[in-house]
Amino acid sequence: MQKFLDPASVALIGVPRNTGNGSFNNAETLLRYGFEGKIFPVNPNTSEICGLKTYPSIANVPEAVDLAVISVGRERVIPMLDQCISAGVRRVVIITQGFADADEKGKKLQEEIQRRAKANGVRILGPNTMGVLNNFRKFTTSFVDVVRPEIFSPVSLIAQTGLFQVASQDMTYKHWGKAIDIGNGCDIDVVDSLTYLAADPETKIIVLHMEGIKRGLDFMKLASRVTLNKPVIVFKPGRSQAGAKAALSHTGSLVGEDHVFDAVCQRAGIIRVRSSAELKDAIRALVQMGGMEGPRLGVVTASGAWGIMTADACEDYGLELAKLPDGLADKLLTGLPDWISVSNPIDIWPIGMIGGNYTRSFGTALTELLRSQDIDGVLGILPVPDSPLHRNLNMVDCIKDARNNSGNMKPLALWPYLDVSSFIDKFESVPGVACFDTVEQAVKGLSFCYRNHQAKKRNIPLQRKFPIDLEKLRPLAEKGRSQKLLVGDEALMLLDLFGIPVVRSGIARGRKELENIASSMTYPLVLKLTGAAFLHKTEWGGVVTGIRDLKDLQRAFDRIVHNVSTRQPDVKVESVLVQEHIHGHELLLGLKRDHEFGHVVACGLGGIYTEVFKDISRAIVPVDQEEADGMLASLKIAPILKGLRGEAGIDWKGLVEILERLSFLASTLSDISELDINPVIATSNKCIAVDARILW
Amino acid sequence: MQKFLDPASVALIGVPRNTGNGSFNNAETLLRYGFEGKIFPVNPNTSEICGLKTYPSIANVPEAVDLAVISVGRERVIPMLDQCISAGVRRVVIITQGFADADEKGKKLQEEIQRRAKANGVRILGPNTMGVLNNFRKFTTSFVDVVRPEIFSPVSLIAQTGLFQVASQDMTYKHWGKAIDIGNGCDIDVVDSLTYLAADPETKIIVLHMEGIKRGLDFMKLASRVTLNKPVIVFKPGRSQAGAKAALSHTGSLVGEDHVFDAVCQRAGIIRVRSSAELKDAIRALVQMGGMEGPRLGVVTASGAWGIMTADACEDYGLELAKLPDGLADKLLTGLPDWISVSNPIDIWPIGMIGGNYTRSFGTALTELLRSQDIDGVLGILPVPDSPLHRNLNMVDCIKDARNNSGNMKPLALWPYLDVSSFIDKFESVPGVACFDTVEQAVKGLSFCYRNHQAKKRNIPLQRKFPIDLEKLRPLAEKGRSQKLLVGDEALMLLDLFGIPVVRSGIARGRKELENIASSMTYPLVLKLTGAAFLHKTEWGGVVTGIRDLKDLQRAFDRIVHNVSTRQPDVKVESVLVQEHIHGHELLLGLKRDHEFGHVVACGLGGIYTEVFKDISRAIVPVDQEEADGMLASLKIAPILKGLRGEAGIDWKGLVEILERLSFLASTLSDISELDINPVIATSNKCIAVDARILW
Repeated sequence: MQKFLDPASVALIGVPRNTGNGSFNNAETLLRYGFEGKIFPVNPNTSEICGLKTYPSIANVPEAVDLAVISVGRERVIPMLDQCISAGVRRVVIITQGFADADEKGKKLQEEIQRRAKANGVRILGPNTMGVLNNFRKFTTSFVDVVRPEIFSPVSLIAQTGLFQVASQDMTYKHWGKAIDIGNGCDIDVVDSLTYLAADPETKIIVLHMEGIKRGLDFMKLASRVTLNKPVIVFKPGRSQAGAKAALSHTGSLVGEDHVFDAVCQRAGIIRVRSSAELKDAIRALVQMGGMEGPRLGVVTASGAWGIMTADACEDYGLELAKLPDGLADKLLTGLPDWISVSNPIDIWPIGMIGGNYTRSFGTALTELLRSQDIDGVLGILPVPDSPLHRNLNMVDCIKDARNNSGNMKPLALWPYLDVSSFIDKFESVPGVACFDTVEQAVKGLSFCYRNHQAKKRNIPLQRKFPIDLEKLRPLAEKGRSQKLLVGDEALMLLDLFGIPVVRSGIARGRKELENIASSMTYPLVLKLTGAAFLHKTEWGGVVTGIRDLKDLQRAFDRIVHNVSTRQPDVKVESVLVQEHIHGHELLLGLKRDHEFGHVVACGLGGIYTEVFKDISRAIVPVDQEEADGMLASLKIAPILKGLRGEAGIDWKGLVEILERLSFLASTLSDISELDINPVIATSNKCIAVDARILW
Repeated sequence: MQKFLDPASVALIGVPRNTGNGSFNNAETLLRYGFEGKIFPVNPNTSEICGLKTYPSIANVPEAVDLAVISVGRERVIPMLDQCISAGVRRVVIITQGFADADEKGKKLQEEIQRRAKANGVRILGPNTMGVLNNFRKFTTSFVDVVRPEIFSPVSLIAQTGLFQVASQDMTYKHWGKAIDIGNGCDIDVVDSLTYLAADPETKIIVLHMEGIKRGLDFMKLASRVTLNKPVIVFKPGRSQAGAKAALSHTGSLVGEDHVFDAVCQRAGIIRVRSSAELKDAIRALVQMGGMEGPRLGVVTASGAWGIMTADACEDYGLELAKLPDGLADKLLTGLPDWISVSNPIDIWPIGMIGGNYTRSFGTALTELLRSQDIDGVLGILPVPDSPLHRNLNMVDCIKDARNNSGNMKPLALWPYLDVSSFIDKFESVPGVACFDTVEQAVKGLSFCYRNHQAKKRNIPLQRKFPIDLEKLRPLAEKGRSQKLLVGDEALMLLDLFGIPVVRSGIARGRKELENIASSMTYPLVLKLTGAAFLHKTEWGGVVTGIRDLKDLQRAFDRIVHNVSTRQPDVKVESVLVQEHIHGHELLLGLKRDHEFGHVVACGLGGIYTEVFKDISRAIVPVDQEEADGMLASLKIAPILKGLRGEAGIDWKGLVEILERLSFLASTLSDISELDINPVIATSNKCIAVDARILW
């Protein structure tokens, strides 16, 4: 990978003869970019391009180049690739589009490229790529003329479009250091690129733009390691289109592809952003400020109005306003009229104006906030008038001094306003300082620093093992596998084998068996139609609740038989499920196997409101106690589950253990595709699976 | 008001002697701003400031000035005001802070200012204000030196802080045209200022920054009229709990409930923004593009990647991707290889590159999208490389031609990238075009244009009248008024008088009366403790449900008596409420009187999830059928109420009518402070109030 980004020599196959305006000539753009290695243009129709000698074919190039870049019509790509292989080239970028991105024929051509590359030990980047960019080496394979930036950041990009390279100044902070456009990714993919950048000393922060994902599990495992050292920011658009696939179970429909990817980011410590603006702010925050060790924010503002906006933004982005450090009020207010007061956010305007030294007051407040043990990050909101009447404000030195006097590197975000353009670079030359376009973006920026810290310190769960009776499990799992499905009693039995509490129940194969089965149960009972023919029981009129005694039970049986025969006279009720009826909170727990990332555990609100509120937490297997606890705590209904206003909460510990056991189930029966426990009824002393469905 | 913003002469009372760096001298800043009217500095300690003759007192100023600006210590403000009054000044700006914004003493001083102004027919702006700004007349009362912008927009601001004037370039698009800082608003307030700007021909768009609100009803009525002609954008921070608290200590004004304010904006056609970034984008969108008549968006993009981001943003901001206009695919693809296809968003890159004329393809696509009857607005995503190798792209003419050829003024948002800085003004000189910093902001900008259109076309509800029996209402209302409260049976009776269906119920004054009352009812029944002593019935163990027969009923009565006596032996159960038990969806309906805006009708999810999901719609009284329908439709549970997957929905029409009747109730009994119907049980054929509480 290194030589893709830092080749000593490069052959450009298919360079046009035209140069200048409108030619999209990649030899010309590379020269303009200042590349200092050797360039060998390949074009059989001329002898010179931009002052460079051209070669009729790669075979004529006098040395083995580190890298070849092919940009010819799609029909001619494979012959050119073959010539590269013959010439001993080991690395090829294929710019040309019209492969798997286009039609069936393109897809076949791409497969052929893949095959030949593999057979000959050649690595391919593309096709349908803009290739690579390396500002540390003045190297680009772009055919769009981009001016080389003198200043760039140690932020490297892996993208699925080259336009992130072209739009470098619009998508990042002070330009990418390096960039790799995966294109169609027929060979080199995100995992390869991430492996390279993880080890690259010139890269401090990694940004990924992804639309789809291959080798998901490898990606997640790799990212999980990388994020312990370098922040990984992912921008994965396509949120709105994801998850449209048909799902057979409730959990299936509530765990869409995008939800899975959120769970992957959570597990791997990836910071996911949702828009280009967020991407830019996150990069700026992490480049300039790094981590923030807690959510407690101290604020100095030139107006109370901005303080109120800050408070709103803290709530929006998960930070909190710290309490004012002890002694700071006295320090700021000494000698001032009684009517001036101070809290956090510190409105420094009256203090500075009436105290007679605005800059000193601002500096004192800032320094003390940075110093305080009870504050994790600081926001400064300040006018920087570039006016002859206000030159004495000298806010740049004020910020520098505050940093020096604080003796630490806590993140300090600034929202400078008024004549900001000439000040931003000066402020940001102070270590640990970042400037943002608005108050809210500054708070959001700090929240990314906090997320970065949380990602590094995150829980890395290990699967807890539970004893299970494999002898009993085997035939049941076999049956499920062959039927592709277990429902009702059998599904509950499987859960029971994994130690998940299930409701007391029994199967009656006719009216006569009802009495015997019910005799060992506590009323009220529920009667349910069972059997694979009746997937959606309620639609068959196959559920009767609130059964108080044996007579009720028999009447309920008759009603179900009647309902079924009304709907389809030829369908016979072979058996019914008799269950104890438990009152409590109706929850939904489940599993779904994602084809890229494996099993996802889900839990949340069950019952009729499931679909409309979608109050569901999701996590990738394995889920341990801490993870399960976090899943429950992140639900909107968590306060109800904990017990609101003197009402008893549910058996939280029991529910946590069910989640752990579900995770163990998934890791044991890894071929299960979907599993629904719907509902789990949670009461103050137990959580019980009442119905379940398992799909293979 | 006009002369506050456009005075021919102004006296500056309390100008400092110092000038230059750090002096905050408002005579000096006004001169630098280029004001062409007369300036009379008042300062008894010198004879000249910045070349202007000074006067020892306003009494010595040789003519009656249009405006006086006072900036002296708070103790000296009233004497100066008195001198202004004596000198015949009719308009005074009081810059000084330390009044209602500070302490009790300041509050009293402010009241005294108010009293004297009123008694003498003098209008006051402030105190605690930066005053006014009028770029059309090169006038400012700011003591912060701000460079006068040559270019500004027809957007005028009313704010509660002068810092919006100082930060003009950071908070708006091409600077404010005019600005008024209300400050503490002791006299001139938002309503006065809005009245002025509504009629001001130089103002096309009005922006309000508010932290609190006074004269709420006047404001709402006025804004409702203004928004039919000019867009009104409101930025009202203090949404969060913490923010609301900070507002108390800022301009001395209270922050009303944020939900109420949302309902006010909805009713009055105000576009509310939630952050500074949204504010800027909304202003830019409305200044440059105006209205968008529907949500259907057409997109031309230089890369499929940006198209995916656009789709996400459409979902986030309530727009939709239109279908590709008929015939456009043929027009774009003629002569191109088969593998190139096209949909909306139109990825123009392969079409333009392989077709050989990128700019022409882009222009064709843009023109046809603008022309299509099935598209309401267009987004163009385009690189604008300012490079000698790409000059022939000439995107500016492309955009101009597309506008001219389209023959209409549909909004056209652009996200230009690469070397944008020199292009933005050129693009925005094309009518109806706005440029944004990111794809997502461009979509959001268009969504503001759509909201602007919706605001103009919004429903303006009238109160429907219902016949009521005033003879019966009077004593009940009197009782409520004197008790401050009606609960249970009496509250339901009041609802019944307004034609709101209530559950069949009766009061039993002892065990013996149970049988008689229940005889006319259908089991199952519910028994509830009643009477003002038992506000929270469940806490007293005072509710028993699922009563099946008379014996059950009697047992339930005994249980409630026992529960109460266990809790407080000296409290006696005097009566109980017997009700039919209806199964259905549990909803919450209610009224609340806001001290500024009058009654608000609320409806939404009842039961235990009310607090956690807060699925509640709110609207200001009056609520008519269309409004009530919209309230229900905006609930997350609306699909359930309409009937999900073959399940019967609720009696929607019945619920709509209850909302209309509730609104009528509020307009009839205007002194009710709160009313709860909790729950309303909604079934497929009726919606029934089951319990209620009314507070005066």
